[in-house]
Amino acid sequence: MGGRSVPGGPRPVGLMATSRLEAFSDGVFAIAITLLVLDLAVPARSPSGSGGLASALGREWPSYFAYLVSFLIIGIIWVNHHTVFDTVRLVDRPVLFANLGLLLVVSALPFPTRLLAEYLTAGADSHVAAAIYSAAMLAMSLAFSTLWLVITRDARLLHQHIDAASSRAALRRFGLGNVFYLGTIGLAFLSAIATLAVHAALAVYYCFNQLPVARSGAVAPDGGIRRDESDG
Amino acid sequence: MGGRSVPGGPRPVGLMATSRLEAFSDGVFAIAITLLVLDLAVPARSPSGSGGLASALGREWPSYFAYLVSFLIIGIIWVNHHTVFDTVRLVDRPVLFANLGLLLVVSALPFPTRLLAEYLTAGADSHVAAAIYSAAMLAMSLAFSTLWLVITRDARLLHQHIDAASSRAALRRFGLGNVFYLGTIGLAFLSAIATLAVHAALAVYYCFNQLPVARSGAVAPDGGIRRDESDG
Amino acid sequence: MGGRSVPGGPRPVGLMATSRLEAFSDGVFAIAITLLVLDLAVPARSPSGSGGLASALGREWPSYFAYLVSFLIIGIIWVNHHTVFDTVRLVDRPVLFANLGLLLVVSALPFPTRLLAEYLTAGADSHVAAAIYSAAMLAMSLAFSTLWLVITRDARLLHQHIDAASSRAALRRFGLGNVFYLGTIGLAFLSAIATLAVHAALAVYYCFNQLPVARSGAVAPDGGIRRDESDG
Amino acid sequence: MGGRSVPGGPRPVGLMATSRLEAFSDGVFAIAITLLVLDLAVPARSPSGSGGLASALGREWPSYFAYLVSFLIIGIIWVNHHTVFDTVRLVDRPVLFANLGLLLVVSALPFPTRLLAEYLTAGADSHVAAAIYSAAMLAMSLAFSTLWLVITRDARLLHQHIDAASSRAALRRFGLGNVFYLGTIGLAFLSAIATLAVHAALAVYYCFNQLPVARSGAVAPDGGIRRDESDG
Repeated sequence: MGGRSVPGGPRPVGLMATSRLEAFSDGVFAIAITLLVLDLAVPARSPSGSGGLASALGREWPSYFAYLVSFLIIGIIWVNHHTVFDTVRLVDRPVLFANLGLLLVVSALPFPTRLLAEYLTAGADSHVAAAIYSAAMLAMSLAFSTLWLVITRDARLLHQHIDAASSRAALRRFGLGNVFYLGTIGLAFLSAIATLAVHAALAVYYCFNQLPVARSGAVAPDGGIRRDESDG
Repeated sequence: MGGRSVPGGPRPVGLMATSRLEAFSDGVFAIAITLLVLDLAVPARSPSGSGGLASALGREWPSYFAYLVSFLIIGIIWVNHHTVFDTVRLVDRPVLFANLGLLLVVSALPFPTRLLAEYLTAGADSHVAAAIYSAAMLAMSLAFSTLWLVITRDARLLHQHIDAASSRAALRRFGLGNVFYLGTIGLAFLSAIATLAVHAALAVYYCFNQLPVARSGAVAPDGGIRRDESDG
Repeated sequence: MGGRSVPGGPRPVGLMATSRLEAFSDGVFAIAITLLVLDLAVPARSPSGSGGLASALGREWPSYFAYLVSFLIIGIIWVNHHTVFDTVRLVDRPVLFANLGLLLVVSALPFPTRLLAEYLTAGADSHVAAAIYSAAMLAMSLAFSTLWLVITRDARLLHQHIDAASSRAALRRFGLGNVFYLGTIGLAFLSAIATLAVHAALAVYYCFNQLPVARSGAVAPDGGIRRDESDG
Repeated sequence: MGGRSVPGGPRPVGLMATSRLEAFSDGVFAIAITLLVLDLAVPARSPSGSGGLASALGREWPSYFAYLVSFLIIGIIWVNHHTVFDTVRLVDRPVLFANLGLLLVVSALPFPTRLLAEYLTAGADSHVAAAIYSAAMLAMSLAFSTLWLVITRDARLLHQHIDAASSRAALRRFGLGNVFYLGTIGLAFLSAIATLAVHAALAVYYCFNQLPVARSGAVAPDGGIRRDESDG
């Protein structure tokens, strides 16, 4: 039920399987994360050809730094998107549009990345670029929180073994991230480089701190399927 | 039946599952919607580096406006494409080509978007750019209507619980949209900015007004599957 | 059997399901067909802004012509790829690499398209560009024929209801297309525009002339599944 | 079990089906391999239009050479990724991040490809470009080995008919490739063209030398499914 195999099978009116939402989202995530590479510029070939390439590439370090941080962030959003939709059984039209809101921010991320890479060492302008980058991350975090709110508003959308109350509690803890991202907008006006470094640190932090989705289904050690009685 | 799992299983000769059509379409939609970001230009770094970035970005507002409207429109086409193919069980060669016609318009949309972003405030040329943008939206709407006509011409292509007669009636209502898009071509010669604003409003309207696909399959409150007798 | 759902289930050693080959191919087709739009250039904004956009766009007709023909050709290759893999049950390593050969040509098509769009009206250089375009189409046709030869060499790869002998006969008829594509290389040295027009005509011809894959599975009019005794 | 059809079904806590990891990876591979074509430059149209296109294209041979080698390498990584995940039943968070590490290198490959294409014949700078290209290949190989180590550390992640001990032995043989790639970094300082040629030769070698995944499931000649008793 709810898989690609029976896309139009009997389901509550207006509810749809998650498969195409996941496929479309995977496409947007994959393209956004791969388009970042287009902004790694190859230095113009100097006429003399006398060994200046290494230093020319070295001067491009802001591009590599911004590329790495943005790749990591989009990658982690994808992992969390995957984790969230692993708990979802069906989607309705509001979920499709809340997801579209998240994809809008994700697909736009190559632009603030390019902007910050270009202006990271540009004096006064570096603060503007870093603030825009931080604002994009805040928008991403808010869009993600909104998506989760929209999903958990209707228990029919979730798999039966998901504990909706715990999931909402997890969302409150996750929502604290929004405060951190808001703080990085302020930090941008102190130092653009420090701002990018903090985003890198936040991304690494989210690598190790899993989105705590409460679930109670489990497979017994013998390989058979076991369900906690309290949930089934 | 009809899923990716059994792509070559026994089916009427010449009919195919919808899975690859959906996967290919999801790919084109995802790429077209993400390529839009390539046209958000990073202003050239001025030599002085004295805080002109914010105003330089501000002058780029037509790019952001066109980006948002086109993103929303492609997103809504995707939602409607998803809604339509949720009713489809099998596809034949005419459906593949009607779908290809829609994808031609969708994949071309970044071009009129870029054109309108560049010329939105360009005097006489702004009307030409806005008319081309509107014509692209009309072509998209016509391609979508054609796709639905081709799908509903053969009842074998639809899931049994879909009411083909109601779906065709819905198409007639949906077809009224073509008249609106035709009107925006005329509006383009009055004001390019108003034209883009009307497209934004039409997109928001379509967010809230669902493509009315008639279906009668439903899941009973106890989680079991129930079918209306009149359809089964 | 052979679907995404059981990707590592028991199968003959070295054989794999078709799902990821199809997903990867769908991705490459979707990206190649959508990247074509990047070569539709927005004319530079003239300082006066006095209505020269329409004629500037008109001068770009070779770009639109080449875009349409290449879109149609990639679209038809995708339809035929879909039709072929609808008959395939399992793939082995030689099929993966033959498919990679086809994808190499498909993903490269935006380059000869861009080249021909730029040089279509460029005198002597137009013949070189048209010959390269035709050579790319010949390479595409040869890669497709090779893929089919590699698939039909092992009956275990096909669904049981596919008639391998008829499929090979169909391949011979299809192989005649290679001769036509060879002819367009010669035509390129007479007229680049005529060459592109012939490619358009060939593409339209292939729209209506289906790749004749012989199959005998059928669904009885009552909706039940029927198999020809001679194949089952 | 473990397929897209039942994405949230009961599974050990923290383990997920492979379908979305595969779909996201297929997307990144497909985009990286197709973006390579953007770096095949169309020569600027000379004003005279007197037949200089052929020689202008001929001077671009480093671009075509680098394009072909990188296409082949990304294609082979995809084939091997497919072969590896054909043995995987479930994934956990460390596998998602190890896979993200591989995708980081894959999606970055268009950059060293563009760099080497531009600098292949650039005297002293050619060695720097070739060393960076070789380092990218070494990073790719290390990321692939890491991914396999992370997968084979937990037998629950593999299909039951996979022999984990043999798979780890295969990994040791595969790991020898890392030494070769390290050697190509040294070779880069002797000759950039020879370095690219060696990468081409290594890619062709990997075409014919399959990643030796030990498996014992088999289909009996009569089409029925047979399992080796020692594994079932």
